[in-house]
Amino acid sequence: MIQLYWKNATAEVIGDTHGITQTDLTGLGAALTGAQQTLTEQAAAGKLGYANLCVRRDYRDSAMALVEKHRPGCTDLVVLGIGGSALGNIALQTALNPATYNLMTPAARKGTRLFVLDNVDPALLHDTLALLGRRLATTVFNVISKSGETAETASQFMIVRELLRKRLGSEFAKRIVATTDAKAGTLNQIARQDGYDMLVVPDDVGGRFSVLSHVGLFSAAMCGIDIDALLAGGAAMAERCAAADWSANPACMLAAIKYLMVARKGKPIHVMMPYSNRLVHLADWYRQLWAESLGKAVNRAGEEVFVGPTPVKALGTTDQHSQVQLYREGPNDKLVVFLEVAKHSADVRIPDAFADVPGLAYLGRKRMSKLLAAEKTATEYALAVSQRPSVTIRLPAITAENVGALIYLYEYTTSLMGELLDINAYDQPAVELAKRATFALMGREGFDPLAGEIKPFVKPDAKYLV
Amino acid sequence: MIQLYWKNATAEVIGDTHGITQTDLTGLGAALTGAQQTLTEQAAAGKLGYANLCVRRDYRDSAMALVEKHRPGCTDLVVLGIGGSALGNIALQTALNPATYNLMTPAARKGTRLFVLDNVDPALLHDTLALLGRRLATTVFNVISKSGETAETASQFMIVRELLRKRLGSEFAKRIVATTDAKAGTLNQIARQDGYDMLVVPDDVGGRFSVLSHVGLFSAAMCGIDIDALLAGGAAMAERCAAADWSANPACMLAAIKYLMVARKGKPIHVMMPYSNRLVHLADWYRQLWAESLGKAVNRAGEEVFVGPTPVKALGTTDQHSQVQLYREGPNDKLVVFLEVAKHSADVRIPDAFADVPGLAYLGRKRMSKLLAAEKTATEYALAVSQRPSVTIRLPAITAENVGALIYLYEYTTSLMGELLDINAYDQPAVELAKRATFALMGREGFDPLAGEIKPFVKPDAKYLV
Repeated sequence: MIQLYWKNATAEVIGDTHGITQTDLTGLGAALTGAQQTLTEQAAAGKLGYANLCVRRDYRDSAMALVEKHRPGCTDLVVLGIGGSALGNIALQTALNPATYNLMTPAARKGTRLFVLDNVDPALLHDTLALLGRRLATTVFNVISKSGETAETASQFMIVRELLRKRLGSEFAKRIVATTDAKAGTLNQIARQDGYDMLVVPDDVGGRFSVLSHVGLFSAAMCGIDIDALLAGGAAMAERCAAADWSANPACMLAAIKYLMVARKGKPIHVMMPYSNRLVHLADWYRQLWAESLGKAVNRAGEEVFVGPTPVKALGTTDQHSQVQLYREGPNDKLVVFLEVAKHSADVRIPDAFADVPGLAYLGRKRMSKLLAAEKTATEYALAVSQRPSVTIRLPAITAENVGALIYLYEYTTSLMGELLDINAYDQPAVELAKRATFALMGREGFDPLAGEIKPFVKPDAKYLV
Repeated sequence: MIQLYWKNATAEVIGDTHGITQTDLTGLGAALTGAQQTLTEQAAAGKLGYANLCVRRDYRDSAMALVEKHRPGCTDLVVLGIGGSALGNIALQTALNPATYNLMTPAARKGTRLFVLDNVDPALLHDTLALLGRRLATTVFNVISKSGETAETASQFMIVRELLRKRLGSEFAKRIVATTDAKAGTLNQIARQDGYDMLVVPDDVGGRFSVLSHVGLFSAAMCGIDIDALLAGGAAMAERCAAADWSANPACMLAAIKYLMVARKGKPIHVMMPYSNRLVHLADWYRQLWAESLGKAVNRAGEEVFVGPTPVKALGTTDQHSQVQLYREGPNDKLVVFLEVAKHSADVRIPDAFADVPGLAYLGRKRMSKLLAAEKTATEYALAVSQRPSVTIRLPAITAENVGALIYLYEYTTSLMGELLDINAYDQPAVELAKRATFALMGREGFDPLAGEIKPFVKPDAKYLV
């Protein structure tokens, strides 16, 4: 079972300027109870969209039906998506398959190779399509966009569709699976006209909460990930997060600590630091969830608040040699959340080759997992000695079940944070302006007035060029 | 030529609460002139170690000699290193070779495959060694550690050495290249005893400034990167950074803006946001350079200051769909540094396939690079409208020359920041405690007293476990 350990964020360990006291928690009690009640009611009324995903059989079944259709004979899967239509897919793949997955032989792998193109970098697209080369006929492109009008995904889709038409003729539509709005929208229409297999971006689930829907499930299952276990883990965590006693509820405690750290203890930077390379892209998924949900200019009463802790990704032990100097000696403005793994998918023993070399002898006969665990404890200790708070989320192992649970834990914690901060955690109003400005710069009809406003930004003013 | 554009960080664009005024710059003038003078003198006296790397022929020649010896017949190169012995290697490879490099056929690639193992994740090491499998006899392991006692690198090295001995017998030493101290130390001794080819970690260059030494040059050249161009680019930038007139000196202007933002404008978070997947690991390299150099508890007079801007990595356009909501609406506590590329290594044209679909028509016949550039300008504009400062570093193209220049620009800017903050930018005292604590936890002789102190951190206190 995933567990949260929070002693090293308390006044008992790091003093009451930086650590959480019983008084802090008591003071937050009513607000937290209220937040928990609100969300419990929303979930019960089916209004907390993502909360239903783990128990829906229909999404699971329809995703698996397409997986069973497409996996035989399929060598490569390319996801065309960005933001919530890519970060979860990448996180699941990195967590649950080896780092070497795409380099393995088909026999050694559990499924198709996976490429997620979540940018409009022309070199990246060019290089990836060049690599796929003659394998296009055995490649599936999963284009994921609710509207179909996200510029990045749309442009990639247009290029890929044209390429497939040229290479495969009338067969091209068989190589595309569209995950999009169930009823309307640009991609929905094209998919119907061209005749793609279709999956659904649910109406009531925002992109950044959608990984356990068709959005994330299809690519995961194509790569051999056990999506039943993933959903079961999410469902089990949902039950734990429903507990009214917040001191026994991991989401409530995590939200309480995160809220107190940013609102009362001057810690606006929230680091997620897994001690496992497999969890590093879960930290990227968290970055979106946290930043887009909680970075808000106004509260629900419309008053300006400009809130939102800044999520930062780090990796242990790697970042001990990069970021920990700053974390220990720089401004005391961070909360570090460690992700710790009790049992790794493989282990390696260090040989006893240098028993007579003082600087190496102690490593002999130890397992590498022991070294990794020691480094994490050492960092936790070093931060505490410098009065820097940390909490640990401990996974017994990186299984689909635990990853599903971790995802749900963070989604629900984000909802609780939204309640505590009294903001709308489900919109992203600030993203719109850059989208519209992009339309204007690309000459989309109807955006001329905005194009005029942006003009000064297009050509550099020589006075400020060095 | 790389250029810095800083208008969108000025009061003229974003107002004088958040933007830099002429008065701010004038006020900093004397300090900046002093800092520049100090560094110029240090460089002239040969005391700014990294500043000499770009003009030294001996390092370049000895690295190339080993590359010429090892590249014929070598299929795979594995770097064993961490922190400054890995981040630069990864940054160069990602910037100057395709994302698909390791997946390409040997004929299509410019050199050997590259794996950089910069962690002690047992699954990662296991999976990588399993992948290499029977290719060990054609793999070179480049172990990089000045002392040879860094626990992560040492443990990997011990495992790999044992494996090679078992598989290759007396030939094993031919598969290892040790980059280490030239004269003494644990790895130096082992390398001499075993008979490895050797390269040097220079005495006068700290790990995070060492990418243009043997540390980074060997793996780059093994992967077909033009290290002469890399060094030439660094040398050309060194000349520009030596200019006494700081308003015409990109490093001085970058340092001035970064310093004013953190010290005067309440912006302790410094985001590096390349609009190119190829530059994303340069941002990781920057994270170490910035955090370890500038995150310091005391100034040079020994007074407590707890300074250090927090470096954050973002990626355009990807993070427009993840972080920009927070950057525009959250606390106004960030400076965004965009890395922009004028000409990408490849481009792709979007077909005119949906001329009658309003949401897609505008994309038809445009190059993808134009879309990427528009997204960047749109984000710059959207930030400015919200009074959020940004600067842009513009690369004409991602060539070895420009990457070398960018590296030097940031190294020198870091030195200037150290002068302005009046701290030692070249040490990392806070890293030591976690190292020693790791020794204690692993049972290294002589660390028992520390083990006692850490004990409370080893086993969770059930009271704080949820």
